Amino acid sequence: MSTHVNPEGDAIGSLLALTLGLESLGMTVYPVLAEPLPPLYAFLPGAERLTTTLPSTLPDLGIAVDCDGSGRLGSLEPAFLGLPELVDIDHHASGRRFGTAHWVDPRAAAAGELVESLLRGLGVRFTPDMAQNLYAAIYTDTGRFSYSNTGPRALNAAARMVRAGAQPVLIFRNLYESRPPAAVRLQGEALRTLQLTDDGLVAWAVLTREAFAAAGAERTDTEGIIEAVRTVRGIEVGILFAEQADGTIRASLRSRGRVDVARLALAFGGGGHPRAAGCTLPGPLPEATARLVGAAHRALQGEPGDGMAAH
Amino acid sequence: MSTHVNPEGDAIGSLLALTLGLESLGMTVYPVLAEPLPPLYAFLPGAERLTTTLPSTLPDLGIAVDCDGSGRLGSLEPAFLGLPELVDIDHHASGRRFGTAHWVDPRAAAAGELVESLLRGLGVRFTPDMAQNLYAAIYTDTGRFSYSNTGPRALNAAARMVRAGAQPVLIFRNLYESRPPAAVRLQGEALRTLQLTDDGLVAWAVLTREAFAAAGAERTDTEGIIEAVRTVRGIEVGILFAEQADGTIRASLRSRGRVDVARLALAFGGGGHPRAAGCTLPGPLPEATARLVGAAHRALQGEPGDGMAAH
Repeated sequence: MSTHVNPEGDAIGSLLALTLGLESLGMTVYPVLAEPLPPLYAFLPGAERLTTTLPSTLPDLGIAVDCDGSGRLGSLEPAFLGLPELVDIDHHASGRRFGTAHWVDPRAAAAGELVESLLRGLGVRFTPDMAQNLYAAIYTDTGRFSYSNTGPRALNAAARMVRAGAQPVLIFRNLYESRPPAAVRLQGEALRTLQLTDDGLVAWAVLTREAFAAAGAERTDTEGIIEAVRTVRGIEVGILFAEQADGTIRASLRSRGRVDVARLALAFGGGGHPRAAGCTLPGPLPEATARLVGAAHRALQGEPGDGMAAH
Repeated sequence: MSTHVNPEGDAIGSLLALTLGLESLGMTVYPVLAEPLPPLYAFLPGAERLTTTLPSTLPDLGIAVDCDGSGRLGSLEPAFLGLPELVDIDHHASGRRFGTAHWVDPRAAAAGELVESLLRGLGVRFTPDMAQNLYAAIYTDTGRFSYSNTGPRALNAAARMVRAGAQPVLIFRNLYESRPPAAVRLQGEALRTLQLTDDGLVAWAVLTREAFAAAGAERTDTEGIIEAVRTVRGIEVGILFAEQADGTIRASLRSRGRVDVARLALAFGGGGHPRAAGCTLPGPLPEATARLVGAAHRALQGEPGDGMAAH
């Protein structure tokens, strides 16, 4: 059993809850990740069970959770596709189904909502550990019950999980109140550079190599900064530019809906989702900023070629 | 009908939902605030109904929502206490009840949870406007379903409100993604100054008058910055120091539980709640910082006199 590469709260919480739930029914389960678990999620109950090693004797049945296409299994894809039975449990709307059986419900806010429903249907008695994982899954994928996918089913499932022993405050503290001081300082260095296009629709912030040094920060400390950029009133696109050690510029993009930033990032050799994407540009920083901000701005104006014109 | 001074999402959302709900039953309702509505909440449906003027003929019945003691009604207190009947609907645990009838349930995560239950009991058919206000009330008072007060009742009530037409994403955008650019820049100026005590238990950030000028920010743009300070891993107390135009230093304090920052602030002539408080100190900034950080640190060590020793 596995989930997608670069897993987040919904992927890991769903995988762990399904592992613990099926084990409680007497099944033998091997939860496997293509890459080591991101340390941010190590607090989730059962996280120590996750390995990057497939069992020497492969099981008869595989389950992939929250994978929008089998390619999202990463290096595990060939092994999973070779299993006699492979079940695809997902909530993405793309239609990239796979496996010998699939249960894809795009009305679900999170894969965790489906796993909760499945385990309930199987008669699993939810333990606090299962409940904590499923609350984390639904809570993170709905942006803490904020995004447009926040539906009654997600909220009712979360209510059942709290009743079963989930502790939302521990998830909150571990995911949102556990930032290294250098990362918080780096966020400061970024936000103070905030600029907007004249029409206020594109906002961006920049991190020079000097800013990383001033904050005592690593490249990985940029996590979460783009989310702060997107808190600006009235914007459609938020971008964070971070100068890398080799002089290239890593850009993270967020959209509130009008622009498909995955398409924009693709024009610069990157990729992602319509509302969250990234790409790497050649330096120096001012030129990279001008190019990508200009392309984002043109995409908003709906000019011919929009983001693609900058290719 | 009114709520407390310095009202936040739970106060205003509960007041507006109760107004709309009772009106739907044919009652005449006057929702009044002691001071003008904070602009942040003007997007809530029915907010235009709120005034600071009592009706010329006072009604027979008053309702106070989310008021921890009648003093929280501010300048409206005398008028409300003079009404023939006054109902106190609240969820604070202090025991400061008042009025001719009271319904105080500290197990409720938010006053909005009580109002939802009341209106449901009265047979009100929830409109999307009522639902939006109640979702906002419960969502904000649970920290977006993150704090330890997040219970199954709050989540189930929120689920009913989404079913009745609440749109969480609009609340999220208006409350958390509508910051003026200058306020975001000011947050940057603050966070880059982040410091911690050697034991990592107290974190603080400072805003000089120069920082306000560099960000092009007003004094009111500090809102939300202390919440960013408290995202630092492992801290118990977070403090934001902001130099005022007159040279005094405004300090905002947050605690994760071990220290009662209201008591700490009181020692410096301020006040607040055990986990969120504020005070104003004489300048200059370095001395003010040293005094309050020192007092917070001593309070954590449990030294004799803790916060009070600095009085």
